[in-house]
Amino acid sequence: MCRWIAYSGTPVLLSRVLFQPEHSLIDQSLHSRMGVETTNGDGFGVGWYPQEGADPAVLRDVGPAWNNRNLQEIAHHTRSGLFFGHIRASTGTAVQQSNCHPFRHGRWLWMHNGLISEFRRIRRRLALAVDPERFADIEGSTDSEVMFHLAMTFGLTDDPPGAVARMAGFVETTAQDHGIAHPLQMTIAVSDGRRIWAFRYSSEGRSRSLYVTTRIEALRALHPEVWFLHELSDETRLVVSEPLGGMVGAWNEVPESSYGVIEPGGGTLHDFRPAHAAGRTA
Amino acid sequence: MCRWIAYSGTPVLLSRVLFQPEHSLIDQSLHSRMGVETTNGDGFGVGWYPQEGADPAVLRDVGPAWNNRNLQEIAHHTRSGLFFGHIRASTGTAVQQSNCHPFRHGRWLWMHNGLISEFRRIRRRLALAVDPERFADIEGSTDSEVMFHLAMTFGLTDDPPGAVARMAGFVETTAQDHGIAHPLQMTIAVSDGRRIWAFRYSSEGRSRSLYVTTRIEALRALHPEVWFLHELSDETRLVVSEPLGGMVGAWNEVPESSYGVIEPGGGTLHDFRPAHAAGRTA
Amino acid sequence: MCRWIAYSGTPVLLSRVLFQPEHSLIDQSLHSRMGVETTNGDGFGVGWYPQEGADPAVLRDVGPAWNNRNLQEIAHHTRSGLFFGHIRASTGTAVQQSNCHPFRHGRWLWMHNGLISEFRRIRRRLALAVDPERFADIEGSTDSEVMFHLAMTFGLTDDPPGAVARMAGFVETTAQDHGIAHPLQMTIAVSDGRRIWAFRYSSEGRSRSLYVTTRIEALRALHPEVWFLHELSDETRLVVSEPLGGMVGAWNEVPESSYGVIEPGGGTLHDFRPAHAAGRTA
Amino acid sequence: MCRWIAYSGTPVLLSRVLFQPEHSLIDQSLHSRMGVETTNGDGFGVGWYPQEGADPAVLRDVGPAWNNRNLQEIAHHTRSGLFFGHIRASTGTAVQQSNCHPFRHGRWLWMHNGLISEFRRIRRRLALAVDPERFADIEGSTDSEVMFHLAMTFGLTDDPPGAVARMAGFVETTAQDHGIAHPLQMTIAVSDGRRIWAFRYSSEGRSRSLYVTTRIEALRALHPEVWFLHELSDETRLVVSEPLGGMVGAWNEVPESSYGVIEPGGGTLHDFRPAHAAGRTA
Repeated sequence: MCRWIAYSGTPVLLSRVLFQPEHSLIDQSLHSRMGVETTNGDGFGVGWYPQEGADPAVLRDVGPAWNNRNLQEIAHHTRSGLFFGHIRASTGTAVQQSNCHPFRHGRWLWMHNGLISEFRRIRRRLALAVDPERFADIEGSTDSEVMFHLAMTFGLTDDPPGAVARMAGFVETTAQDHGIAHPLQMTIAVSDGRRIWAFRYSSEGRSRSLYVTTRIEALRALHPEVWFLHELSDETRLVVSEPLGGMVGAWNEVPESSYGVIEPGGGTLHDFRPAHAAGRTA
Repeated sequence: MCRWIAYSGTPVLLSRVLFQPEHSLIDQSLHSRMGVETTNGDGFGVGWYPQEGADPAVLRDVGPAWNNRNLQEIAHHTRSGLFFGHIRASTGTAVQQSNCHPFRHGRWLWMHNGLISEFRRIRRRLALAVDPERFADIEGSTDSEVMFHLAMTFGLTDDPPGAVARMAGFVETTAQDHGIAHPLQMTIAVSDGRRIWAFRYSSEGRSRSLYVTTRIEALRALHPEVWFLHELSDETRLVVSEPLGGMVGAWNEVPESSYGVIEPGGGTLHDFRPAHAAGRTA
Repeated sequence: MCRWIAYSGTPVLLSRVLFQPEHSLIDQSLHSRMGVETTNGDGFGVGWYPQEGADPAVLRDVGPAWNNRNLQEIAHHTRSGLFFGHIRASTGTAVQQSNCHPFRHGRWLWMHNGLISEFRRIRRRLALAVDPERFADIEGSTDSEVMFHLAMTFGLTDDPPGAVARMAGFVETTAQDHGIAHPLQMTIAVSDGRRIWAFRYSSEGRSRSLYVTTRIEALRALHPEVWFLHELSDETRLVVSEPLGGMVGAWNEVPESSYGVIEPGGGTLHDFRPAHAAGRTA
Repeated sequence: MCRWIAYSGTPVLLSRVLFQPEHSLIDQSLHSRMGVETTNGDGFGVGWYPQEGADPAVLRDVGPAWNNRNLQEIAHHTRSGLFFGHIRASTGTAVQQSNCHPFRHGRWLWMHNGLISEFRRIRRRLALAVDPERFADIEGSTDSEVMFHLAMTFGLTDDPPGAVARMAGFVETTAQDHGIAHPLQMTIAVSDGRRIWAFRYSSEGRSRSLYVTTRIEALRALHPEVWFLHELSDETRLVVSEPLGGMVGAWNEVPESSYGVIEPGGGTLHDFRPAHAAGRTA
């Protein structure tokens, strides 16, 4: 499907994270190890907050990330303390800029790996549930974008975990009404420019991979020779679809059906369960 | 907005019509004289029937037509007796392949110049009226594509003039419900691979320009020195947003609120009036 | 590096060869088995002769072949009895249309898999040897395009095997002057619209893979149940970087340091040796 | 041909200069008033220095500037005190990223409006004069890029005015050897991240338009109500192909055959004359 990366911490050049690691996101665009597809070459996107709380910038294009010069230019000249990167492997929908992640609304960024099974059959039902004021903002044809607008409709800006739970519940209920088994696969990252919420969930309980870095001070103790670690604040965290390299002790798998919150001061891990509101699809 | 051209008659190289005339469609992409915008550089498309009744091929891309080499290659190496060409000037929606004309469904091609006023406000209402089986086929974000799917929903394949009239009526009724004045501007071409229907209409009665060629035998009499005319059958016809050159006697303006049918054996002209079905937006 | 395919025989839809085989060229763009790179996503091209001896059409684009809709359209609507397909994996040069194969000059098509080692160091020397009248036709920055212009300079249109031998010899001599070991890796296909010449050679004697199909009548005897074989003339041949599927008896490896000629009436195989003209680099 | 803009002064969002003025560079891409072509839609580029003296970032793409979302994103989120913007109208060479301006080498940026007449006839001679070490850096097919590499060869990094004079002289001498009249048309901007050199010259003495802004303190006195002027340092300067709006007293035409230097502390204007070195084309 796709691969993604979310960074929060000491401001760094985007290239430090997107390009330089041994098994970077750019390397994953050609040689993903844990994804459903080896190649993620159907578009890419990067979203970054120039400062905390500022509206994010988004660079998206339809070609592969691995050969895109504008991505290299921006990554090598832009610093940020909170950014997303995403590489896409289309599950059939068009390869166009409006289908590339991250999606944005105001201060909010959203990206997704996974899919809604048989999305074509329930696309209309899901789109109808999007806030009518927001419907005309749908520009592309992906499940991921509709999921974003549903989560916005269900209160994302006030309560991200609750809104994502309601979105997931609504998708599952709608799909089950159509006899679709195991409808939802998702790892999702959301940010408001200060915090990141990262979700791992699937209806069948076999979710796409997701990892988060160990606390930096623990890593520094393990690998005192890695100078880059000394540049990063203790609070710096990476959430990734698959580890960026083989550094022992660096990567913790995010458990099934859970979500994490990363914010200044630390991170927390919680259970995630879709909220199936009675009558929501009526 | 846009400019388009529809050809029916003796099979010719596409380039003969798209590139060679003095004020060809390609020239109009840079220097439109009668369009709302001088420049039509937000994508283009060509659709052609390899043989009568065969499914059409469609070439579409997001850059300008005037510098696209693939368009030149195809136009200089492909013959067809029925084809459409379209150049786009976006009225705000994304520049992406799925927003380029012509749109296709099976044997049918559709292209449009004009707009639905304040489309964002009624996009959802219009999209909901599309046949639910067909909703998932919507790939882009234009009014033109929704108009196509509405016309398909209202019976385009059985009765093109009736379906377009019902589509136009539905758009007008829906817009009026939202207090939108003069909602519809359209010149539309539709084909099934044998016939072309070309419509000129606007709610305010000031429609975008549309022209059709004089009968070829009359043109030959006027311009016996133009050898190309001697290659064309008497039935050959062109419908265009604006004339391709200054040949005296060649171009007839299609009247306001009318549509023409071009088919083997000749062409006919008819009045066009939107059909406002009672209760259709309920 | 790259993968390619050359077809000569009964006119067929391009898609029949480019898309439908189990391990088609399009599949190889994502999952090459025998190439240096698994992924060939840095552009593609198709060149085809509408009729024998006519100038060929060329469709080239910078994105991956596997998700390109225009390629699908053309392949599913165009018939040809002689065509080339190429998918590119850049060895560092820019991803741009003018670096995509096949290259064309008049009736001639040229495509290449392989590389000139340390091409940057001898690019100027090689370019200087191109016929001055032809120098301004160089549009891109690849070794492959310079090799084509060198072969044209050395008489390609009169004597393809001789010209390619002189080109290869010149590249080797120039490279050796610069202390570059094993400078040349190449499988090359050339056509004038009637014949195909296919070369397999490398300075180190370990050339990229190249296969040619068995005679169709032999294949039909082995696989009488494969209906497609009954549509093809006995003379139909495919030359490919890697086999398009596992059909027993279908594929013959082209030997090291050899070239084949495919033409109406049959095919022949010959030794290939670079021609190192005395004083050519002086 | 093209249009360009060069900014030096108080760091501002790129969009403040590229998008917001009444007749901004983006507006000129659709509606140039003083250019040879109305439309400049064959690619664009922006180059900016994140800090004084740092290596510049470059964003270039092949579509029109007016509809490019990535350009909007970068322009609305990036601040710089020294940047270039360029919109291209091809004079026949390919529309590809490597033909878009500005060109870069290390700390240096270069952009050009104009052309070398009959460039194809002397392209080889000019390319041969490029420093052999630098020849392999030529990626595209434009006269502008070759002019840049010639100027680098002739000492651009040590003496920009002298190197540009030698480049211009060499082009003229070479062209005259081939009987080409009035070979050179150029407005050129060069920067090292601290200073900007802007040249206006043509062999026939009828050069493309070029303007520079009045001193900011004078403008503030004329237009005290324009708040933006109060944000800019006295030293801020813009050099442009055509004025960005109708503000009285804002724009001074750069004289024929002259060049200006803009640097911290002020600007100076000088005569420009090509240097025709004896024997340089031998």
